[in-house]
Amino acid sequence: MALRRKKQVEPNRDAPDLGFGTQLGDEVSRFINRDGGFDIRKEGNRGYYAYEQLVEMSWTRFFLVVVSYFIGINLLFALLFGLVGLDHIAGMSSLSTLGGLAEAFFFSVQTFTSVGYGVLHPVGGGANMLASLDALVGLMSFALATGLFFSRFARPIAKIAFSNIGLITPFRDGHSFQMRMVNKRNNHLINMEARMMVTWVGTGADGVRKRQFSMLDLDLNRISLFPMNWTLVHPITQESPLWEKTAEDLRDMNVEILVMVQGFDETYHQEIHARASYVGEEIRWGVKFSPMFRTESGQPTIVDLSRLDTTQPLAV
Amino acid sequence: MALRRKKQVEPNRDAPDLGFGTQLGDEVSRFINRDGGFDIRKEGNRGYYAYEQLVEMSWTRFFLVVVSYFIGINLLFALLFGLVGLDHIAGMSSLSTLGGLAEAFFFSVQTFTSVGYGVLHPVGGGANMLASLDALVGLMSFALATGLFFSRFARPIAKIAFSNIGLITPFRDGHSFQMRMVNKRNNHLINMEARMMVTWVGTGADGVRKRQFSMLDLDLNRISLFPMNWTLVHPITQESPLWEKTAEDLRDMNVEILVMVQGFDETYHQEIHARASYVGEEIRWGVKFSPMFRTESGQPTIVDLSRLDTTQPLAV
Amino acid sequence: MALRRKKQVEPNRDAPDLGFGTQLGDEVSRFINRDGGFDIRKEGNRGYYAYEQLVEMSWTRFFLVVVSYFIGINLLFALLFGLVGLDHIAGMSSLSTLGGLAEAFFFSVQTFTSVGYGVLHPVGGGANMLASLDALVGLMSFALATGLFFSRFARPIAKIAFSNIGLITPFRDGHSFQMRMVNKRNNHLINMEARMMVTWVGTGADGVRKRQFSMLDLDLNRISLFPMNWTLVHPITQESPLWEKTAEDLRDMNVEILVMVQGFDETYHQEIHARASYVGEEIRWGVKFSPMFRTESGQPTIVDLSRLDTTQPLAV
Amino acid sequence: MALRRKKQVEPNRDAPDLGFGTQLGDEVSRFINRDGGFDIRKEGNRGYYAYEQLVEMSWTRFFLVVVSYFIGINLLFALLFGLVGLDHIAGMSSLSTLGGLAEAFFFSVQTFTSVGYGVLHPVGGGANMLASLDALVGLMSFALATGLFFSRFARPIAKIAFSNIGLITPFRDGHSFQMRMVNKRNNHLINMEARMMVTWVGTGADGVRKRQFSMLDLDLNRISLFPMNWTLVHPITQESPLWEKTAEDLRDMNVEILVMVQGFDETYHQEIHARASYVGEEIRWGVKFSPMFRTESGQPTIVDLSRLDTTQPLAV
Repeated sequence: MALRRKKQVEPNRDAPDLGFGTQLGDEVSRFINRDGGFDIRKEGNRGYYAYEQLVEMSWTRFFLVVVSYFIGINLLFALLFGLVGLDHIAGMSSLSTLGGLAEAFFFSVQTFTSVGYGVLHPVGGGANMLASLDALVGLMSFALATGLFFSRFARPIAKIAFSNIGLITPFRDGHSFQMRMVNKRNNHLINMEARMMVTWVGTGADGVRKRQFSMLDLDLNRISLFPMNWTLVHPITQESPLWEKTAEDLRDMNVEILVMVQGFDETYHQEIHARASYVGEEIRWGVKFSPMFRTESGQPTIVDLSRLDTTQPLAV
Repeated sequence: MALRRKKQVEPNRDAPDLGFGTQLGDEVSRFINRDGGFDIRKEGNRGYYAYEQLVEMSWTRFFLVVVSYFIGINLLFALLFGLVGLDHIAGMSSLSTLGGLAEAFFFSVQTFTSVGYGVLHPVGGGANMLASLDALVGLMSFALATGLFFSRFARPIAKIAFSNIGLITPFRDGHSFQMRMVNKRNNHLINMEARMMVTWVGTGADGVRKRQFSMLDLDLNRISLFPMNWTLVHPITQESPLWEKTAEDLRDMNVEILVMVQGFDETYHQEIHARASYVGEEIRWGVKFSPMFRTESGQPTIVDLSRLDTTQPLAV
Repeated sequence: MALRRKKQVEPNRDAPDLGFGTQLGDEVSRFINRDGGFDIRKEGNRGYYAYEQLVEMSWTRFFLVVVSYFIGINLLFALLFGLVGLDHIAGMSSLSTLGGLAEAFFFSVQTFTSVGYGVLHPVGGGANMLASLDALVGLMSFALATGLFFSRFARPIAKIAFSNIGLITPFRDGHSFQMRMVNKRNNHLINMEARMMVTWVGTGADGVRKRQFSMLDLDLNRISLFPMNWTLVHPITQESPLWEKTAEDLRDMNVEILVMVQGFDETYHQEIHARASYVGEEIRWGVKFSPMFRTESGQPTIVDLSRLDTTQPLAV
Repeated sequence: MALRRKKQVEPNRDAPDLGFGTQLGDEVSRFINRDGGFDIRKEGNRGYYAYEQLVEMSWTRFFLVVVSYFIGINLLFALLFGLVGLDHIAGMSSLSTLGGLAEAFFFSVQTFTSVGYGVLHPVGGGANMLASLDALVGLMSFALATGLFFSRFARPIAKIAFSNIGLITPFRDGHSFQMRMVNKRNNHLINMEARMMVTWVGTGADGVRKRQFSMLDLDLNRISLFPMNWTLVHPITQESPLWEKTAEDLRDMNVEILVMVQGFDETYHQEIHARASYVGEEIRWGVKFSPMFRTESGQPTIVDLSRLDTTQPLAV
């Protein structure tokens, strides 16, 4: 079978650089959630990534896991001490089995955490070996917890807040789509770059209704420093897919405007990335953003994060 | 000896940017293993890189090393306590030497792990100094273990799964080589870039049969987001070394198609890299990849990792 | 409302790549402080970033926080032991309540730090459970502290020292603005890049007095290695906003010259960034920088950091 | 003082991108040491960078510092316990002051390392407070040590071995300067890039004898993978400063050829950089490098690191 035989098949990919393909059409209401994630679930042989989960779960759930593990592993050791024989733990005061197991649990905790008061202590080879294992497991668990704590903290989830709304608003002698963002934290983000894309469901050149993608030019797509808020401005020229569209058009086209920013976090010395997206009902018309900052002579400039979504009527 | 004297020697390197040189010919069956590694072994004065090995070994082996070290170092301290004199550990119950050494071992464990029940405790300067050293070595070992745990976990081995097969399949009005990949994990990989190369053993312009290298153009070589699967498509045009080749040709030429991808892991904030390669018998003809995802209205899109290698007959 | 209606509005941003916008005018005396920070304060719903604060605070404050936390948490546990009943801690010698609470505090410290002498030890289920929690909280606190210590140390605050003064000094057949910098540490900084910008308040093309920005060309804007000092030279050509300006002009224009450098820290394997700025009164005229280094045959070249600001009269 | 007045001054920097300047002439025998460092020492107000030193010192010295600190801090606490009164440590067996201080030292060690046997234990508020501080300082010291261990290990000192010699050897129809390198470790280095520069002391266009710099073109300056050795080849064309130079010329010119490579370490997910330099006496003439690898069918290719400097006579 030589490669010379030609055959016409439709291209399965003519979009620019998003990784969604063109087969997802009207049934997908939005690609990027407001939190920057995707509405996609993976199944099949994913393997089991315990560390990934332990790093990414919420703090509440993380502490629940830590406490559950702590109780569970010490209960296990209490049972193992029970198997070896509770009489091999000297210093017990309980006579009942249940009370003895409770004391064995506390003895295990004292060994696992390396507190070792010594009132309870192992007697004989079996109990001593089990106690040694208990202490080793405790130390290793703790080493693991230290790594997890650090990993959880060191993940610089970029705290860039994006405006919940985008605006179609005048710009120069035409119109523009605008949204804005601000760094919520005091760390310095530098060398910020932004890209804006639009996706909509429309009829392509081949007459098939499918998802389209296009980049949107920005008036300014990079800033060196990011001390205040940053407003991204897409001038709606004749080349823009938004040219001469009405609010109803945008909703009919199932429009989603995607914003991707990246930069460098000087505090954590790492690249950071963030995303936002705007669908039809999140786009306001006929207003402009109000300034977010105020200055007083001799005082630091104040950037008020609560004004991120604040707009004002257009000047007449 | 001036540099002006010219002399014709063969160039020892005219390949593009792989680091293998051209001297490896037919005797090398493939350059990149299916796991992305190389079939290369280094010898000579490599030095001894304990940390490298401890970070890269399997978890099973790592835990064996940890337990062996734990037992070994405490046995060593037990012997040292024996040299100082077992009567310098108060609270011993054994009368035999072996039993005493066992107790000394457990005492060392209690000191090394800083449990310190206190029933066993050192008496006199020598035993106290040895116990102090035992505790210090224990703490340092534990500090080391913590670092190792963290290093092992923080290594973001990119879990990009590559299809086990590549396809020669129709594309537009011609043919293409295609393979696909998917991120097995839920972390966000962004700004993905891919390169494809081919290497084969053939007769060069100078009539010598040796290894050749060539880049393969891709229809789309970068995507901003990587939420679903990504199919790499090399259109087989007249410029491609694969032009008009049959399956037999590819096997005769000892063809290996190399794929290298890189991107940025938003979860671990690090660059990631992965590789795959396809030799003749891993290339299928006359089929195309089946979609890996399914959508239901109002539900998350499902990407089924188990369908990575699933193909279907070409439409008639 | 279609987008076709055109309307003239002034552009709210025509500056190059600094993120300050043009609305901050005379009331801002300088953009970048001498320590590289901004005179900007954020308010509104910032959330609470404890980790960020703990990593960035001074060492003195950090140790105060550590000691306060240590005392506070153990006082809390002392009170909880008091609630359970001080008679559930065996080995107490105090008869008074206050003395008992003090002993409970020390018992908590012994448990929290896992010292566990054992003279004081819990008796009964309630006290044992509380002691277990005490030990767990202690270990977790310590895991956290380890991560914090590491984060604080691993932040490679680039120790690039910038000259406190900039010079307007002859260069080739004209003038130049010059400043210089040196790496205070012994780590190797490589692939250094520098940019220089100037901002001033002036009357724009539209007749409005507002803040202007302009890049300043550099004679040499990157070096591969940074072993000694580096002098940045902006030749003042006709294209420069500094062309034919006097010292008084610069002060009247509220001029601030910004320097941004970045590079790669070979010791910590991370990108580093640093900034400096020069306002009118920090610019000297009619002098040139003195060499910072001296060489003696057979000796290492000496770079004297204390000479960073040293100038000498121009040669006649 | 306006900037218009022009005045001829010599440019103090017209070199390409090394950061050494042109003022260092004959008195500097070589810029880059064989270990990649510089023969430069800094003095003046460097501040005191304890962490930097603790991370970069040798392991032997590091362990000496750890042990000295351990002994020193516990001696200090022993003295403080002596001030509080040795009778406030219960369980002491010594009657002499010196013996008591020794026991106080061991008690401090038991507290500092959180072993806490309990035979020795504090009595009274003062001793208890001191013991609490001892335990806290111990834990903090240990947190610090953990961070230091990790920092020391995580520094991926790129183990790229450079040939100790460079060759002037035939290449194509002319000559070339060649050196080679190999990754000593098994980690994967990818996307390697190399630059070669030459510096010599010569008479410039202005008739002044001073240090000159020039880039040297490479036949191949980047490779995607680095599984074997990599030979850098600078073809000596008419544009090269090495054109028609003899071995004596090179030594007279005080020639130093600098090689800088960078790449990405897939194992540690970090950029790596390395350097080498070759002065006149390290350059061999009339030989070529012998292959470093050998292949056997069905066996891994062997790269023999000990052959890095092995050369063989030119073929006749």
